[in-house]
Amino acid sequence: MSKKYVYVWNNRRVEGNAKMKDILGGKGANLAEMALLGLPVPPGFTISTEVCKYYWDNGMKLPDDLKPAVEQAMHELEEVLGKKFGDNDNPLLVSVRSGAAVSMPGMMDTILNLGLNDVSVQGLAKQTNNERFAWDSYRRFIQMFGDVSLEIPHAKFEEALNKVKREKGVKTDIELDAEDFKKVVELYKKIYQEEGKSFPQDPMEQLWISIEAVFRSWNNPRAIKYRQINKLDDKNFLGTAVNVVAMVFGNMGEDSGTGVVFTRDPSTGEKKYYGEFLMNAQGEDVVAGIRTPQPLDELKNIMPDVYKELTEIMDKLEHHFRDMQDIEFTVERGKLYILQTRNGKRTPAAAVKIAVDLVKEGLINKQEAVMRVDPADIEKLLHPVFDPEELKRAQYIGKGLPASPGAATGKIVFSAEEAEEMAKKGEQVILVRPETSAEDVGGMNAAQGILTNRGGMTSHAAVVARGMGKTAVVGAENILIDLKNRLIKANGVVIKDKEWISIDGNEGKVYAGKVKTIRPEGLAGELATLLDYADEVSDLGVRANADVPRDAKVAREYGAQGIGLCRTEHMFFGPERINKMRRMIVSKSEEQRRKALEELLPYQIEDFKGLFKEMEGFSVTIRLLDPPLHEFVPETDEQIKELAKTLGITEEELRQTVKELEEFNPMMGHRGVRVAITYPEIAEMQTKAILLAAIELMKEGKKVHPEIMIPLVGNVKEFTILKDSITQIADELIKEHNVDLEYKVGTMIEVPRACVVADQIGEQADFFSFGTNDLTQLGLGFSRDDYGKFINDYIEKGIYEKDPFQHIDREGVGKLIKIALDGGRSTNPHLKVGICGEHGGDPESIEFAHLVGLDYVSCSPYRVPVARLAAAQAAAKYKRGKKVNY
Amino acid sequence: MSKKYVYVWNNRRVEGNAKMKDILGGKGANLAEMALLGLPVPPGFTISTEVCKYYWDNGMKLPDDLKPAVEQAMHELEEVLGKKFGDNDNPLLVSVRSGAAVSMPGMMDTILNLGLNDVSVQGLAKQTNNERFAWDSYRRFIQMFGDVSLEIPHAKFEEALNKVKREKGVKTDIELDAEDFKKVVELYKKIYQEEGKSFPQDPMEQLWISIEAVFRSWNNPRAIKYRQINKLDDKNFLGTAVNVVAMVFGNMGEDSGTGVVFTRDPSTGEKKYYGEFLMNAQGEDVVAGIRTPQPLDELKNIMPDVYKELTEIMDKLEHHFRDMQDIEFTVERGKLYILQTRNGKRTPAAAVKIAVDLVKEGLINKQEAVMRVDPADIEKLLHPVFDPEELKRAQYIGKGLPASPGAATGKIVFSAEEAEEMAKKGEQVILVRPETSAEDVGGMNAAQGILTNRGGMTSHAAVVARGMGKTAVVGAENILIDLKNRLIKANGVVIKDKEWISIDGNEGKVYAGKVKTIRPEGLAGELATLLDYADEVSDLGVRANADVPRDAKVAREYGAQGIGLCRTEHMFFGPERINKMRRMIVSKSEEQRRKALEELLPYQIEDFKGLFKEMEGFSVTIRLLDPPLHEFVPETDEQIKELAKTLGITEEELRQTVKELEEFNPMMGHRGVRVAITYPEIAEMQTKAILLAAIELMKEGKKVHPEIMIPLVGNVKEFTILKDSITQIADELIKEHNVDLEYKVGTMIEVPRACVVADQIGEQADFFSFGTNDLTQLGLGFSRDDYGKFINDYIEKGIYEKDPFQHIDREGVGKLIKIALDGGRSTNPHLKVGICGEHGGDPESIEFAHLVGLDYVSCSPYRVPVARLAAAQAAAKYKRGKKVNY
Repeated sequence: MSKKYVYVWNNRRVEGNAKMKDILGGKGANLAEMALLGLPVPPGFTISTEVCKYYWDNGMKLPDDLKPAVEQAMHELEEVLGKKFGDNDNPLLVSVRSGAAVSMPGMMDTILNLGLNDVSVQGLAKQTNNERFAWDSYRRFIQMFGDVSLEIPHAKFEEALNKVKREKGVKTDIELDAEDFKKVVELYKKIYQEEGKSFPQDPMEQLWISIEAVFRSWNNPRAIKYRQINKLDDKNFLGTAVNVVAMVFGNMGEDSGTGVVFTRDPSTGEKKYYGEFLMNAQGEDVVAGIRTPQPLDELKNIMPDVYKELTEIMDKLEHHFRDMQDIEFTVERGKLYILQTRNGKRTPAAAVKIAVDLVKEGLINKQEAVMRVDPADIEKLLHPVFDPEELKRAQYIGKGLPASPGAATGKIVFSAEEAEEMAKKGEQVILVRPETSAEDVGGMNAAQGILTNRGGMTSHAAVVARGMGKTAVVGAENILIDLKNRLIKANGVVIKDKEWISIDGNEGKVYAGKVKTIRPEGLAGELATLLDYADEVSDLGVRANADVPRDAKVAREYGAQGIGLCRTEHMFFGPERINKMRRMIVSKSEEQRRKALEELLPYQIEDFKGLFKEMEGFSVTIRLLDPPLHEFVPETDEQIKELAKTLGITEEELRQTVKELEEFNPMMGHRGVRVAITYPEIAEMQTKAILLAAIELMKEGKKVHPEIMIPLVGNVKEFTILKDSITQIADELIKEHNVDLEYKVGTMIEVPRACVVADQIGEQADFFSFGTNDLTQLGLGFSRDDYGKFINDYIEKGIYEKDPFQHIDREGVGKLIKIALDGGRSTNPHLKVGICGEHGGDPESIEFAHLVGLDYVSCSPYRVPVARLAAAQAAAKYKRGKKVNY
Repeated sequence: MSKKYVYVWNNRRVEGNAKMKDILGGKGANLAEMALLGLPVPPGFTISTEVCKYYWDNGMKLPDDLKPAVEQAMHELEEVLGKKFGDNDNPLLVSVRSGAAVSMPGMMDTILNLGLNDVSVQGLAKQTNNERFAWDSYRRFIQMFGDVSLEIPHAKFEEALNKVKREKGVKTDIELDAEDFKKVVELYKKIYQEEGKSFPQDPMEQLWISIEAVFRSWNNPRAIKYRQINKLDDKNFLGTAVNVVAMVFGNMGEDSGTGVVFTRDPSTGEKKYYGEFLMNAQGEDVVAGIRTPQPLDELKNIMPDVYKELTEIMDKLEHHFRDMQDIEFTVERGKLYILQTRNGKRTPAAAVKIAVDLVKEGLINKQEAVMRVDPADIEKLLHPVFDPEELKRAQYIGKGLPASPGAATGKIVFSAEEAEEMAKKGEQVILVRPETSAEDVGGMNAAQGILTNRGGMTSHAAVVARGMGKTAVVGAENILIDLKNRLIKANGVVIKDKEWISIDGNEGKVYAGKVKTIRPEGLAGELATLLDYADEVSDLGVRANADVPRDAKVAREYGAQGIGLCRTEHMFFGPERINKMRRMIVSKSEEQRRKALEELLPYQIEDFKGLFKEMEGFSVTIRLLDPPLHEFVPETDEQIKELAKTLGITEEELRQTVKELEEFNPMMGHRGVRVAITYPEIAEMQTKAILLAAIELMKEGKKVHPEIMIPLVGNVKEFTILKDSITQIADELIKEHNVDLEYKVGTMIEVPRACVVADQIGEQADFFSFGTNDLTQLGLGFSRDDYGKFINDYIEKGIYEKDPFQHIDREGVGKLIKIALDGGRSTNPHLKVGICGEHGGDPESIEFAHLVGLDYVSCSPYRVPVARLAAAQAAAKYKRGKKVNY
C-alpha cells in the first residue's frame, strides 16, 4: 500500500483537521478545519510534511507515489471548480504555499497565480473580462516563479518593470495598462533567457518546480536561522507541508480586496476587531508594506455585508480555536474568502492580557493560560522604559507606528550584518531600514530595536519585532533614511552612522541621542493575575537572590516567596566598611581579627534587619562569607600605599599579605567554608549578626525566619564544625533574649564531592541549595572566567547543545544533582532543597528543577516573574515524579 | 559476674597465649606463650588492655573489680615462688612494664625492683647474701619510681648519685659499696621531700601507683607522637596492658648478666645469631647504651651452657613465631631467664631478606612474605647511596656503628626541636646527639639521618632509626659532640651548627660537607625475588608514568608492565623544539599552525620510538597534549623581546597573544581535550607521530602496543570527535604501510562530569585511566596549587584524615571512581581501567584500586617496586569484589 501524502479539502470532502498540524502544517491543518466548519475557504490540497522529510532524507528526491496523488488531487480541484489547469477559456489558477507545523512568517516562499502561461492568460482575461488584470497577474507570476523557484534576482524584474514605467513616463503600477504588462512579460521572459533559464509553459511543470522549491526552501539559510533564533529544534520537525489552493483574487477591481485581521488587538490584547485591508490588491501587497493599508473599521463602510460576515467568522474562529486568531481574507468581486487562520503573534503584553481574558471568558483554564505566554515575554514586559525625567530633556525627532512596545537606545546601523557584528562586540544598536525583509531577521534579533520609515502594523518589521519582543517603530515617514550616506534626517536633525538614537515602541516616538531607561515597578493588572494563576498551577516555590533591602523589596513586589540567597560579601564593600574588613584581613592574630570583626558587627546587624523587614513572614537564606579574602584587598601600588597608611602598617607588610593571599586558581582556593574553618571568628560574627538582627525584629513583633547557609561544603565535617558553632552561638543568644525564634542551618551543594556524600550532609542539614554556577564549574571543569575561549567551538561542534552556564547541563550537572538529592533525602526526608545559581531564573533549568522534585528556585529579583511562570509551565507540562528523559 | 582483667602465668598454669595480643599486649601474650612452650620465663601476670581503655573512658579511674584480682594474682605469685611481697627475709620483687598490642619501644615506662622498702631491702640482702646489690637495687628502684611514677626530674637523682661519687673520689658506680648506696638512698628520699612527694613503704601501694603510671603513660605526648608517626590509629587500640613479672637479676655478680639477641641480623637479615650482653648488669643498662656491651659470640666462651640453651631457645622461638625474634634474656647466677620475645625490628634490607629466606626455608608462604615488608621500606631500599666519584674526594672525619643503612646528607642540628623546625622549612638536617631518647623521636623522624657518639647497635638511636628507615651512625666515639658550643670535632675538623655533613649508614662512615647521592640501579637479589612473589600474589598490573626513554628504562628494570602515562607536553620544552611550539601558538591561521606542527612531527616520532623501544612488548599509553598553551609562552619582558625577534613578529603582537592566553583559573581553562577541539591539528600531528613511530618499529620486527589517551574528557562527544579523527588518521597510515598494528583509544577520567556519564564514554573507549590528581582537584574543589593555605587546618580538625592528594579520598573521589567504573563497565565489559595520578604509587590508594577492581595502577618509575608490593598486600588482605567499607 502506498503512503498517503496528499490531503484534499473542498465542498465535497475534507480529509484533514486542525489536529493534524504535524503532517499538514499549521496552515494546511487550519484550512481543512475551516472547511470542516463550513467557512468559505477556497478548495485545495496539502502535500504532507512527510514528503519534505523524505525529500531531505533521500538526496532531494520526491517519493514516487507522490506524482499520481498530486495529479489526482488537481483533477478533483478542476472538477469541483469546473475549471481546467492551463485552460485557455476558464483556467484553474492555484497558489503554492509552504506551511510547517509551527508558523514561520516570511521564512518560506509563496507562489501565486500558478497555472498561467501564454495561453491561459488569454483564458483569464476572458474569464474575468479584464485583460489588464490577466496580464498583471501573469507578469506577477512570472516574476515570483523566477524569483522563488529559479532564484533569478528579484531586482532584475523590478528594473524591467521600472523601465516600462519610465518609458511611459508614469510612476506607479496602477498607471500601467494591459499592453504595458505585455511588454513587461516580454522583458521578464528575456531575463529568464539571460539567466539561462526557461519559463515553463506547462502548468504541471510549473507546479512541480514550485512544489520542489517549497521543500528546498525548508533548509534555506533564512529558515535555518529562524529556527535557530526561535529554538525550534530541527529534530522535532518533519519539515514543511505544501498547500496548493485555488486562487481567489483581491485585485479584480474595486469590488475586490484583501486583508489581514486579528480577533483581538495583537499589540495590547484588547478584545476588539483589529486589522487592515487594501482594496484591489493581492495579499502580498498588505504583508510587504508597500502600500499603506486602511484600518479594518473602514471596511464596514465600504462593504458592510462582507464586514459583517468577516467579523462573524472571526468570532467563530476565535471561539473554535480558543485563542486570538490572525486571519487572511480576500474579497473577490464582493465574495469573502478566508485564506488562512492561525493563532496570532502578539506582543508580550497582549499575550498576557489575552490569556487572562480567555480564562475570565471561560474559554480556557488556568493551566492553559500559563502555557499561552512565553516566560521570555514576561521578562520583556518588565523591560526598561525611558526615564521620564531624562525624556523631558530628550530631543524628539519624529514619530512612526508603535509596532512593538518597549524602550530601546543604541547606535544606529543600516544593515543587518552590521547589527550582528556590533552586537557581538557588546554594542547596543538600533537597526534602521526603510523596510525589513526575511534577510534582516538575524540583525533584528541582534539589535536593541528596529526603526523603519515604511510599512504598517502588520509589515514584516512589525510582525517579526513583536514576535521577538524587540522594540520597534515602523513607518516613521517623516524620517529620511539615507542609506548611501549612512545617516538619517528628521526634524532638522542629522544623525550619522553609529550615533545614538532612542526609540519608544509604546508611543512610536523617536529621540536623538541616548536616553536612560528604568525598570517598571512591581506587577499589576493582567500580569499580576496571570502570575497568580501560575502560582496556583506551580509545584515550585520561587525565591529571590537579594543582598540589599532595595532588591528584597523588588523581589517581594514581583512575588518572591523569600530570599534564597543573600550574598554577604557585597556588604563589606561599603566605604565605611571595606577598611574595617581589610584591617581584619591583615590581622596577625585571632585577637586582632576579632577586634576588627567586632567593628563590622553593627553594620551586619543593620544589613540583616533591613532584609528581614522587607521579607517579613518569609524565609531569608543568608550565605556566610564566600569569596577568597584577596577579593577585598587592593591591587594597585597607589591603593596599597594609601591603605597601608590608613591601617597604620608598612607598605611592605601589606604587600606581603596581598602576596600571600594570591592564588593560582582562586575558584578552587581558600574560600567558602574553608575561610570559616581557618578563621572561625568571621562566621561567628556573621552568625551573631544574623541572630541579633532577627531577635531585635522579633521583639518588635515581626516574624523572621533566618536560614544560615554554609557555602562550598564538600565534606560533612566541614558542615558539622560550622553547624556546631552556629548552634551554640544562636542558642545562647535566643536563651539570653528569651525569644521564640526558629532558625535553620543548611548548605550550598556546589562541590561535586558534596553530591556523592550528600547522605551524610543531608542527615545534618536543614536544607540544601544547589549552587549550580560552581557545580557547573567544578562538575565540568569549566572556569566561568575562561571558558569563553572554547565554548563557541563546543556549541558549534554540538558537544554541548547550549551554554551550560545558561541552561543547566541535565546530563552531567543534572545527574550530580539527582545523586545529591537522592542521597540527602535518603537520610532526611524533610530536607528542603532549592537552586540558587544563575540557573534559578532560566525556564529550562526551572523545568529541570520541577522534574527532579526540588522545593524552590531562587533567582534575581527581576527574573522572579519569569521563574513563576516557568515553574507553572513545567507543572502544566509534566507531572512531578514522572520519569522524563533528561 | 565480674569481667576478667588479670591473666597469670607460672609453672602451675597459664591463662594467656600469643593470639591474645589485643588484650594482653604483645609482651604479655608472648610471655604467656613462652610459658606454654615450657621456656624459662619468670612467673607473673598481665593486667589487660581493657583496663587501660576503662581507665581513659572513665576519667582516669580503675575498675572496682581490678583490686581483688590483682591481689589474688600477687598471692599466687608469692605462692609459686615461695616469697612474700615486702618480706624482710625473702621478699618478692617484681617489675612493672607496659606492653601494647603493637610494640612501641621506649615509649612506655618500666619500673624494676618493685617491692623494695626499708624493710625488704634487708631481706634482699639476706636472701642474696649481697648487701651492696640489695642497696644498689633499692636506690635504683627509688630513682625509677620517682622518675616514672611521680615525675620527679631524673637529673636530680643523677646529681645526688654524682655527689656521693664525688665525695668518695670515685668515677663509676662500680666503685661504690653498700654504705655508699645507703647514703644515696637517704639523698634520694630527701629529693622526694623537696619535691613534696613521699616514697611509699607499702609494696602494694608502690604497685598500684606504678600500674596507674603505666596506664597514664599511654597518652603521654611521646606515646601519642609515636602512634602518629607510625600511623597507629588510636581507635584501633584499646591501650596498653601492664605486665607484673617476678624480678630476676642480671646484676647479682659475675655469674649474672643480661642481653638482647636477635635470631637473625636485624641490619642485613643474615641468618646468624646476633646480639649483645653485659655481665653483672640489668636490662636497662643494655638498652640505654651507657656501657658498651659485648657481642653475643663472647657469651659462648664465658658461659657455654647458657649460650647453648639460649641459642636453642632462639631457634625454637623463631620457628614457633615464624619470624625473626628480638629476645631479652637475663642470667641470674648462671640460670637463664627469657624476659621477652617479639618480632624484631629490622632494616628494610633485612626485612626483605628475611621474608624471602623464610619462604625458602618453608616457614611462610609467598602471601605471608609480601605482608612482612612495609611498602615504604621498599622505597627506602631504593634510596640514594653516595656517588662513588664524589665520595673519593669527600673528607672522611670518623666512623661509628652502621646502625641503620642508607646515605644521608644534611645540615647538623643538635636538638630534636630544631630538626623538626628546619625540616618544616624544607631543610635537610642530620640530627647529632650524644645519645637519643624517647623525646627525640619527632626530631629523628624529621631528620635525614642520625649521628650519635654513644650506644651500640641496640641503643635507642639504632633501634628507632632502623624502624623508621632513617640512616643512622651511632657510637661514633671519635667524634666529639660539643652541645654547648654547638659544634662537632673529629679528625682535626670542626663542623659548626648548620654546616653540612654526610653519613653512610651502610659503612658507619661520616664525611664533612655535602656528598651527592645517587639512586641504585634496578632490582637484584632478594628484593627482586620478593617482588616476583608480589606479582604472583597481586591482582593489579603495575605500569609506570614515563615521558622519556631513560625513565622507561628505569621503570622496566623495576618491573613495570608498560607505561600508563606518557605526558607529551614535556617533549616540547627542548631547546630545539620550544620555539617551534611557540611559533605554532602564535600562528594566526590553521595553515600556519599546521606548518609549525609539521616541523615538530619528526621530533615527536623520535620521542615515541624511544619509548616504544624501551617498552617493547608492553602497552604504552600516550596522552595527547594536556596543559594550556600559555605554559609554553615566555613571561618576562626580556624573553618576549627575544622570542618576538626569533619568530619575526612584533613584540606587541606576541604580547597580545600572551595576554589572550592568560587565564583566571588555568586548571579549569583551555587545556586537555579542549585544545584538541579548538585546534584539531595538534592532536592530528601527535596521532600521526605515534602511529608512524609504531609503524617504523613494527617494520623492524618489534612488538608495539600504542594506546592513545585523550585528557580531560567530560562529555562523550569530546571523546568521539577525537576518536574519529584518530581512527581515521591511524587506519589510513596502517593501510598505507600495510602493517598489522593494533592500537587503543581511551581517555583520562578526571572531570567529575565524566564519572556520571561514564556509561556513554565507556561505550566508545577502549580504556579509562583515572587522573586522580585532577579528579581530586575538581571533585573536592581544591586547587592543588592553593590548598596549602588551609589543608593543615583541615587535617588538624579531622575534616580529612589525610592529605587527599597523597592518599585517595575514598569516600568522595573514590565514590566518583566507583560511579564511573560501574557506568563504564555497564556498557563495555572489556573496558581496561587504571589509575595514573600520583596516587598510583601510594599503597593506600593501591589498596583502593584493588578493592574497586581496577586493572592496573601507574606510578613514577622509582615507585614501581613499592606499588608492586602494595598491590600484592592488598590482594593478600582482601579478596577482590569483597564488599569493604571504604
